[in-house]
Amino acid sequence: MESRHSGFGRERILVAPGPTQVPPDVLEVLGRQVLHHRSPEFRGALRRVRSGLQQIAETSDPVLLLACTGTAAMESAVINVADPADKVLVVSAGYFGERWVELASHYGCNVVPLRYEWGRVPSPDDLEAALRSHPDAKSVFLVHSETSTGVVLDLERFATVTKAAGTLLIVDAVSSFAAVPIRVDAWGVDVLISSSHKALMTPPGIAFLVLSPAALEAAQRTQRPRLYLDWERNLATQIGEEPETWFSAAVSLVSGLEAALDRIGREGIENVYARHVTLARHCRAAVKARGLELFSPDDDTSAALTAVRMPNGVGSTAVVQMMHEDWGVTIADGEARLKGSIVRIGHLGYVVPDAIDRAVDALGGSIDDIARLRRTEVAASAGTQQA
Amino acid sequence: MESRHSGFGRERILVAPGPTQVPPDVLEVLGRQVLHHRSPEFRGALRRVRSGLQQIAETSDPVLLLACTGTAAMESAVINVADPADKVLVVSAGYFGERWVELASHYGCNVVPLRYEWGRVPSPDDLEAALRSHPDAKSVFLVHSETSTGVVLDLERFATVTKAAGTLLIVDAVSSFAAVPIRVDAWGVDVLISSSHKALMTPPGIAFLVLSPAALEAAQRTQRPRLYLDWERNLATQIGEEPETWFSAAVSLVSGLEAALDRIGREGIENVYARHVTLARHCRAAVKARGLELFSPDDDTSAALTAVRMPNGVGSTAVVQMMHEDWGVTIADGEARLKGSIVRIGHLGYVVPDAIDRAVDALGGSIDDIARLRRTEVAASAGTQQA
Repeated sequence: MESRHSGFGRERILVAPGPTQVPPDVLEVLGRQVLHHRSPEFRGALRRVRSGLQQIAETSDPVLLLACTGTAAMESAVINVADPADKVLVVSAGYFGERWVELASHYGCNVVPLRYEWGRVPSPDDLEAALRSHPDAKSVFLVHSETSTGVVLDLERFATVTKAAGTLLIVDAVSSFAAVPIRVDAWGVDVLISSSHKALMTPPGIAFLVLSPAALEAAQRTQRPRLYLDWERNLATQIGEEPETWFSAAVSLVSGLEAALDRIGREGIENVYARHVTLARHCRAAVKARGLELFSPDDDTSAALTAVRMPNGVGSTAVVQMMHEDWGVTIADGEARLKGSIVRIGHLGYVVPDAIDRAVDALGGSIDDIARLRRTEVAASAGTQQA
Repeated sequence: MESRHSGFGRERILVAPGPTQVPPDVLEVLGRQVLHHRSPEFRGALRRVRSGLQQIAETSDPVLLLACTGTAAMESAVINVADPADKVLVVSAGYFGERWVELASHYGCNVVPLRYEWGRVPSPDDLEAALRSHPDAKSVFLVHSETSTGVVLDLERFATVTKAAGTLLIVDAVSSFAAVPIRVDAWGVDVLISSSHKALMTPPGIAFLVLSPAALEAAQRTQRPRLYLDWERNLATQIGEEPETWFSAAVSLVSGLEAALDRIGREGIENVYARHVTLARHCRAAVKARGLELFSPDDDTSAALTAVRMPNGVGSTAVVQMMHEDWGVTIADGEARLKGSIVRIGHLGYVVPDAIDRAVDALGGSIDDIARLRRTEVAASAGTQQA
């Protein structure tokens, strides 16, 4: 068995489901002097980044970059496509599905949630039935890769259902983009949202959206006030051969993203997808070999991250802390109602199998140590009570 | 006279009024592996950054960091303190004053603009009179350092006026913070807004606000829906000994900001202010020595940037482009109605006198070249007409 100290003297690793580890070539670009956001060099970077993201999304729809995190891009979707009282359907099977519910409810939409137990895989048939019961629903919000559970749903089949019903489909693809295949045009996704700091291997601070003509038309019809997150006005400055951002751009992160996209281009996106499946299998095999139980589905679709159940009596918060402090390995605790009972290992972006091995070693070692500590405490407490 | 090619072989310099040049020690931090936003290391960085910003603002009010640019922080001020139809007074003497007008009007406020010709210095006496005529005004929005003109107004006197009237004072200090003294508590500023990429020498992507108890009370009373830009909910996670951001943080920029604040701490903020005055004097003397006319006031208050009028017949857009391409010096064109007729040299943040000299040399050289080119064209065109 590895000692708990095996992390010492080795480089710290970050294998959380975002922010993810940034590769050296991207870090090198981030350490360079910034570009001015009205310079030709920045315009070139912006043009190449938008086009690189379009290629990965397999779309001719425009890409809109915003200087914010994924949540603000989600909020932008609600305020650009939905007026108050609009009926919207939300598929929710985790923390980020609930974020859609919260956002749409907060903005006064008539939210019909299609809820699953956290960790379950949502079914397109259920959505089809829900849309039959709610023919007045104007849009469907869902999460492609539920970062809180590791579940990736079958986006192609969901898109078939929404297309047949004639509703807009708005997809949180924050932790799936560039990790799991997404074919926006072929499948018919209206709004796809992701951000810089997951499989795109760049620090957080940029979110982006792919916007279909139907989504942009909806945005023209809605009346809600918005400026920083207004799609139309932001997009107007970003299209064309000399694109700019409306306001100051997060210039260093755009340059970082350009380097990350170059990296993905060199590897080839289909190879990137295949690597994520291989890493997911590798991670799950290691977790099971260690005698631990998976919370995420053990399939090739859910390839972005692996969630692991804690054994009885071991709290995940203490495990994550011990891994971070004693082993130099950073993973993530469960979110909200799953905090304390699962941990999440991200194998998206810049991750190698050795990092997964180190993470699972550290996970197993920390669980063992904490379980042993607990047994000692229980015995001591029993001893005290006897005395 | 310097040749137009004197920029060759020398390092490119960025002396625009934002984004500003990032110092080597901050770049070094930006090139390091990212921290996880739920790690103790990041919590420590966030705590130190918030406290460092408080010190510069000379306040015990809490600082709220947001992953966005200054404009979104301005928008957050409108949507957190003003309900639709609330009467608000806006002091506007430039592009960013008009941004306040646009934001508040867009959100349905009853906007009373107190407008000046762009480049004029707003007077607190005018505001006092306006507040007497509009005793029902609930808040005053103004721009401390108008980045489009270079004018810095006398914030202390404006704050005296709003305090006497019992209205909230909301200040865009984007290009004045850490360049020009601001004493939030002593003067009585309710909301102070700035961002990472001006005198704080860090790339764009983080904005922050200093929020007085009265501002937070107002935010509790207003009804407008908001999530990403909601002050109360964001602040709730950022205060205390173990602060976090509500959503993913722009972790690398927070680390960069920490390094920049350390740098300011080593220099001493009063020395930083004095250096900005010295640089402004240096810049203006050089501009005048070159026979060019200042657009910014020639005083020690307006120490963040210098705006320069173009001589007759020379367009600033071509000058900025030539300086960038031929001299390796990046400054900024005029904004909106001033585009084409002025240029702006930023001497805020990480700037040395030599950079100012290079910028003014490049400016003078480019203006001369463009003027000469124009004379040749005019002569050629006259020759063609004669022939």
